[in-house]
Amino acid sequence: MPEFDLIRRLQDRIAAPLFERESGCVVGIGDDGAVLEVQPGRQLVVCTDTLNEGVHFPRSTAARALGHKALAVNLSDLAAMGAEPAWFFLNLALPDESTAWLDEFAAGMGDLASEAGILLAGGDTTTGPLSVTVTALGLVEPGRALLRSGAQAGDLVVVSGAPGRAACALERLEHGEEPGAAGRMALDYPRPRLALGRALCGLATSCIDVSDGLLADLGHILEQSGVGAEVSVDALPIDTELAGFDDAHRWSLQLGGGDDYELCFTAPAGAETRLAALAGELGLALTVIGRITAAGGLRVVQADGAPFIPERAGYQHFADRSKAGQP
Amino acid sequence: MPEFDLIRRLQDRIAAPLFERESGCVVGIGDDGAVLEVQPGRQLVVCTDTLNEGVHFPRSTAARALGHKALAVNLSDLAAMGAEPAWFFLNLALPDESTAWLDEFAAGMGDLASEAGILLAGGDTTTGPLSVTVTALGLVEPGRALLRSGAQAGDLVVVSGAPGRAACALERLEHGEEPGAAGRMALDYPRPRLALGRALCGLATSCIDVSDGLLADLGHILEQSGVGAEVSVDALPIDTELAGFDDAHRWSLQLGGGDDYELCFTAPAGAETRLAALAGELGLALTVIGRITAAGGLRVVQADGAPFIPERAGYQHFADRSKAGQP
Repeated sequence: MPEFDLIRRLQDRIAAPLFERESGCVVGIGDDGAVLEVQPGRQLVVCTDTLNEGVHFPRSTAARALGHKALAVNLSDLAAMGAEPAWFFLNLALPDESTAWLDEFAAGMGDLASEAGILLAGGDTTTGPLSVTVTALGLVEPGRALLRSGAQAGDLVVVSGAPGRAACALERLEHGEEPGAAGRMALDYPRPRLALGRALCGLATSCIDVSDGLLADLGHILEQSGVGAEVSVDALPIDTELAGFDDAHRWSLQLGGGDDYELCFTAPAGAETRLAALAGELGLALTVIGRITAAGGLRVVQADGAPFIPERAGYQHFADRSKAGQP
Repeated sequence: MPEFDLIRRLQDRIAAPLFERESGCVVGIGDDGAVLEVQPGRQLVVCTDTLNEGVHFPRSTAARALGHKALAVNLSDLAAMGAEPAWFFLNLALPDESTAWLDEFAAGMGDLASEAGILLAGGDTTTGPLSVTVTALGLVEPGRALLRSGAQAGDLVVVSGAPGRAACALERLEHGEEPGAAGRMALDYPRPRLALGRALCGLATSCIDVSDGLLADLGHILEQSGVGAEVSVDALPIDTELAGFDDAHRWSLQLGGGDDYELCFTAPAGAETRLAALAGELGLALTVIGRITAAGGLRVVQADGAPFIPERAGYQHFADRSKAGQP
């Protein structure tokens, strides 16, 4: 299929639900570049992530799930910045050109794009080993973007949802077992926390999305804020899928699993009431799991004050786990 | 090397020459996304292109040339839109992590970024078959972006430089011969026509960069403008590398070779004087090669009026030539 036809095919399936003009897209797919109108009084937020077959997703991943996830991980980054989704660009390398595969991929991406209100405004399709790069552009009020660098001693450490479900499903897959339907959904169709991210502008002092594991990602906040934290394992929200696990196993999945794409953020002491109200509005658990400390380092403690040392504290790309078929 | 260190290493080598704040980059590499300030009265132009090893460049390509070219092809798209470069994002998939290779790659990309005044503001590094995606953001005055859709009957068809040099070098490589130094430079280190693109805002009625071959790319202008064109092969500027070739062979390279990344544009009849002045200012040949016609289709004619039917009128991705090791 000629490149132009391929792009149009994707556009028809992904961009259709939204009108270009309404989104501020003056020129979309079909020219050398897109022309976009950023309204005065908005700053632009740009996030980009690549998913490669055999590295970030197994070969067996359904096309629809891949289309969803490649966009979702970028929307999760926009959420962690407190940005409102606006436009995205898709760079798709394909080993062949099965239209059935493409249609499924586009359906997964298009459904999420429509739900999130983000417009496909351009991209590039090439021949090559299966790889999906999405670059997502969002908008935020000047100075209101949520950064990793604003946590202060005394702040609450908060996490959304109940991390560990997707990690549990992934662990089952790695052991050759089939995860339950809820686990599979969490792994294949993560829900970016866009409404939460928007609501946290002006409330959270720092924010990150949990893509590499709760402790690893909280570690980025601590490093960039120049602070430490104490996290209580007994405060961690427990997903139903993990309810029967022994403590150490469950804590390891909760603290080390990143695939749920929840938000971890800090908020000033005393924000508990606002957080509870927000959780109610969004229908999403927001759990205080610890406190920011002036002293550096990250301490994880049990109910009796004894430290808990997780076996698995998240992972890095280019490290051992990148060979295991997941990001 | 951990991903963060890898990004920092690239940043040190690519972003160093420019200050983030000066470019309107409020938050750069190191958070979930970049935060960028688009000044009031500017529209955003976004271009993105992926280069895959074995498809868009041969395995033997020098790291420095690849770093240059991956950015250059995107700057060429910004040029074709008349945009001023602002920020770019790099998604780099690497099969291994040789720091020597990375440093060379970053040097090639960094030199061009510095010259073009564009800031590396973010990206993603992953494990995978060698692949480079660049997403370039530029700025343009509202309504002044150069599109493919504005050509009108009677307009001049103009091309910059002398297309064919890079195609000639590529042809030599495909025949196992070593191209001359000038040809090699044209192929590996194309010069995006940024100053020309900026100068054409308000002058050109349509514009495209010649990445797929002069005829193929002019065809996009005709299609999107709903017009035709007549191009005279005798008007084509002749690169010194092609001077000794027989007519049909030379015309084929001039009309079908896309790797020089020149601009093809249309301008109102009577613009010859302004074009000549501009060519003088820029030190760059601008040659009128034909006229836009009201009747559709693209006619290529010889001096005696006989039609010339090129063997090779440019190529498409996912077509035969994509197997030959070039884009």
